[in-house]
Amino acid sequence: MDELKSLRDSLDRIDRSLIELIAERFRITGEVGQLKKRMNLPSTDRERERLQMERISALAEEYGLDPQIARSVLRLLIDEAVRNHNRIKEG
Amino acid sequence: MDELKSLRDSLDRIDRSLIELIAERFRITGEVGQLKKRMNLPSTDRERERLQMERISALAEEYGLDPQIARSVLRLLIDEAVRNHNRIKEG
Repeated sequence: MDELKSLRDSLDRIDRSLIELIAERFRITGEVGQLKKRMNLPSTDRERERLQMERISALAEEYGLDPQIARSVLRLLIDEAVRNHNRIKEG
Repeated sequence: MDELKSLRDSLDRIDRSLIELIAERFRITGEVGQLKKRMNLPSTDRERERLQMERISALAEEYGLDPQIARSVLRLLIDEAVRNHNRIKEG
């Protein structure tokens, strides 16, 4: 059971880093939202999203991760960022 | 537009780190799966999941991230890890 505990401690450390990175990502997309509002740009940029999805799939392959999982996580983060952009525009 | 480009470059760097961390997370949950198979433990541990969800919510608050987003990402990663554990057991 010590081995399980040690692996779970590693997972908990990774999860902290993930949360830290995701929080940082939303700080930056918040700045993107402010900028889009100032420049009167649309909240969604389908071409940029397409490139992000392609890039994330290539990165997943590079790191030996299932690209579908990588895309699902990115989809979740992008959708929330777009919702935030819309809130910024309306606010 | 230079400012938008610079912010997007930062997002791309963060996304690479995220993918690297998530890939590392699945390497570790793969080891957990092997261990659970050897020790004949169930693929799912509801109490551990409950603690992970509580912890991730607290971490999200600490880093100024919406806890709901943090839980959605963790849910996605845990569900896939459990599917992988089941595959390891059957394999």
